Amino acid sequence: DAFATPFFEHVDDSISQYIFELGEAVAIPSISADLPKHLPDILRMMEWTKDYISRLGGSVQLLPNPIEKDDNGHDLPPILLAEFKAATNSDKKKTVCCYAHLDVQPASKEDGWHSDPFTLTEKDDKLYGRGSTDDKGPALSWLWVIQAHQKLNVDLPVNVKLMFEGMEESGSVGMFDAIQILSKEGQFLSDVDFFCISDSYWLGASKPCLTYGLRGLAYFSVSVQCCEQDLHSGMLGGTVHEAMTDLVQLMSSLVESSGKILVPGIMDDVAPVTADEEALYDGIDFDCEAYKRENKVVATKLMHDNKKDLLMGRWRYPTLSLHGIEGAFGGPGAKTVIPAKAVGKFSIRLVPNQDPKQIEKQVAEHLNKVFADIDSPNKMEVTLLHGARAWLSDPKHPNFEAAAHATEKVYGLSPDYTREGGSIPITTAIEEATKMNVCLLPVGACDDMAHSQNEKYNKRNLINGVKVLGIYLHELGKFEG
Amino acid sequence: DAFATPFFEHVDDSISQYIFELGEAVAIPSISADLPKHLPDILRMMEWTKDYISRLGGSVQLLPNPIEKDDNGHDLPPILLAEFKAATNSDKKKTVCCYAHLDVQPASKEDGWHSDPFTLTEKDDKLYGRGSTDDKGPALSWLWVIQAHQKLNVDLPVNVKLMFEGMEESGSVGMFDAIQILSKEGQFLSDVDFFCISDSYWLGASKPCLTYGLRGLAYFSVSVQCCEQDLHSGMLGGTVHEAMTDLVQLMSSLVESSGKILVPGIMDDVAPVTADEEALYDGIDFDCEAYKRENKVVATKLMHDNKKDLLMGRWRYPTLSLHGIEGAFGGPGAKTVIPAKAVGKFSIRLVPNQDPKQIEKQVAEHLNKVFADIDSPNKMEVTLLHGARAWLSDPKHPNFEAAAHATEKVYGLSPDYTREGGSIPITTAIEEATKMNVCLLPVGACDDMAHSQNEKYNKRNLINGVKVLGIYLHELGKFEG
Ligand SMILES: [Zn+2]
Ligand SMILES: [Zn+2]
Ligand SMILES: [Zn+2]
Ligand SMILES: [Zn+2]
Repeated sequence: DAFATPFFEHVDDSISQYIFELGEAVAIPSISADLPKHLPDILRMMEWTKDYISRLGGSVQLLPNPIEKDDNGHDLPPILLAEFKAATNSDKKKTVCCYAHLDVQPASKEDGWHSDPFTLTEKDDKLYGRGSTDDKGPALSWLWVIQAHQKLNVDLPVNVKLMFEGMEESGSVGMFDAIQILSKEGQFLSDVDFFCISDSYWLGASKPCLTYGLRGLAYFSVSVQCCEQDLHSGMLGGTVHEAMTDLVQLMSSLVESSGKILVPGIMDDVAPVTADEEALYDGIDFDCEAYKRENKVVATKLMHDNKKDLLMGRWRYPTLSLHGIEGAFGGPGAKTVIPAKAVGKFSIRLVPNQDPKQIEKQVAEHLNKVFADIDSPNKMEVTLLHGARAWLSDPKHPNFEAAAHATEKVYGLSPDYTREGGSIPITTAIEEATKMNVCLLPVGACDDMAHSQNEKYNKRNLINGVKVLGIYLHELGKFEG
Repeated sequence: DAFATPFFEHVDDSISQYIFELGEAVAIPSISADLPKHLPDILRMMEWTKDYISRLGGSVQLLPNPIEKDDNGHDLPPILLAEFKAATNSDKKKTVCCYAHLDVQPASKEDGWHSDPFTLTEKDDKLYGRGSTDDKGPALSWLWVIQAHQKLNVDLPVNVKLMFEGMEESGSVGMFDAIQILSKEGQFLSDVDFFCISDSYWLGASKPCLTYGLRGLAYFSVSVQCCEQDLHSGMLGGTVHEAMTDLVQLMSSLVESSGKILVPGIMDDVAPVTADEEALYDGIDFDCEAYKRENKVVATKLMHDNKKDLLMGRWRYPTLSLHGIEGAFGGPGAKTVIPAKAVGKFSIRLVPNQDPKQIEKQVAEHLNKVFADIDSPNKMEVTLLHGARAWLSDPKHPNFEAAAHATEKVYGLSPDYTREGGSIPITTAIEEATKMNVCLLPVGACDDMAHSQNEKYNKRNLINGVKVLGIYLHELGKFEG
């Protein structure tokens, strides 16, 4: 391939430069959880990236955060918007927008890091450092792809836009408003044809994948109140209907140990498994026993004993988790309190076709019925705290096909098509605002320990990641404007 | 009555002195919850009392706490032991030992006190201050009774021993060991005939009572573990059997909203209601609606709609309370965690004839059966954290009869015979070690707010309390040595 061969060679030759530059980025502790203390670091990281883009000849601006202050009154970082137009025929070429984030999770050596988290440290072909894989490595990879084109004197096959934020690890504050604004006619996102996000991970440690689905969420609280103040179980036990007794009855009516959700109608809208979908599971590289080990499961078995059922349980069926109880005694030891008001927290992971509003209705009806059957004189209330639909893309969409071809060219094998059980709200926000396809194209491995101690990015993933993203642009370039 | 008339007159005349001295005692912040900070204050309170007793001519010693250090390595206060022997015929006279405590609950103005908690403040015939009713007022009353006899030149009708501790509000650390030691042949408690404790409250605000029963306690934890570390419900929900799901099933199997305990066999040993016992309830001064109001119950009704059933539910039947869950999400807001290990806390208030060991066996068998039915692969464990039998005395015992007669002479009416739903472990400890009768003789009112803001002691209760305790000694003196 006229481009791939010299490109791959260039990338292989540039590894020292990449590691040096990733080290510069990791050294900036751009921790968004700790505003205002680290706001200057996030700004510094933004400026560092802006300067890099300017040196590469891109146009770049820092869009002030649409939300002026966070809930605590602190200033918020801007959003970096950049563009590299193809030198020739840019009007006829497609435009891809790559999203990434420049902020990181907190980290400190005392938490159990083997090396300073803000000093990129190479060991056994792994690059240890906070943000190495989440998400500074992938973010910089886009810049290195542009740089490679310039060094090799190859025009960009598509116009490339970059949208990098600095609040992802803290709820992407301002980003959802920004996407609304930027998607309007004539704005930054209005001419984008494809989106690509490299901010998730392979299912395993060795085989690349593309992610085409995410579950949604309906998060509930259910409260029962018997009194205005906590009571002493010795003094008053036996004279009042206790809130905790009722709440535990309500919570136990929601789900069985087997995982079966007991809310009537909850499975009605779940999309059936198609033959096409089922076929995607057969080749997936996944080891149930390794999964059990990695997650330190002490139960004698997992929910399912085979790969397909286990992954379907994780990705494509709703699940209900009981998270805990607010207002009850949660400490160690023995306290003889009758809680005045106990608030159960639970959530249902939603799958395609499930509507949070409909789920809310079913859950409320069910709990109201159970509470009526209990015949308690206490006060009960069900509240949907947060609702978000599932996201499901078409793995045969040209955007995914381009990513698959790029993966094949670099790794010599087809990617697994995976979903994730959790949600990445920015994905849905972009698709809904722009009506364009988003491809989740992970470049890091499942054992990269994002958010944990000793986060790392494999040198192999770094090199191959740059290669995949570069070829991906050329695959997109095959589509007509 | 030769003694009562001048005695009552003396007490009425001494109110200014009593208030002044109670003020001195309240001014010493002898807070046992805050060792070592307040240890010097507890010691000062002990010395203050010791000096007072010495001035009255009693013999007094401070017994070093049998437990040298508390769990945090802090020194513990001693136990005050004093004796006033009758001047004549002391060998033929009975001996009564009065227990009280000189330490207090924490308090600070900022918590919502209308006046400084450590400055005894008189308002509307109420004496506000921390420890005024719990338990410095009652403790000093014994000294005032002795003083009155000296002022009136009347010999003591019984030998009087005092046992005052300084750790009651913090678990009576060392007191249980001390009781064991002091009950041995030839030791301080070995010749005591009657015990009296004034450290509880009337059932209501206006009618005196004697307390002849306390419930016991079996406090349990039940834990379910699925993993060694908390999981994310998005990432892993649907692949593991969740600990919380199982725990809530277990907890919901214990008790119904109606209060009915579902553990098989749990009611087998409950003593039946006798006609004698039932008769005690009829005259009791108790208002269900006022009780509902005072405890700020928001439920539409109490567990029972009549006095007898409500008090029996509170005093003489076992109750099961679910206190909370350790290890689950207990904070405000929405966190999508699958707790790795959730530990439910619950306790059963025990009544006469119930054995904590037997209850433990029944609860463990029940939960093991429910867990087996669930067929969960998780790990489950039931633990009895604390067990104590109920205490039930004979309201017709001479000790109680003496207290009843004293109450009648002072108040002109017979006391109610009450039980309490909670436990006062020192009561059982004394009875088991000495085999002698303990009378719980409350002198404070139900609305004295012990342990709460604006604790107070009514002037009326203070005056009548000294009178009742004085006459009580003379009633005991009628029994032969
Ligand atoms: Zn990320
Ligand atoms: Zn992250
Ligand atoms: Zn007390
Ligand atoms: Zn107390």
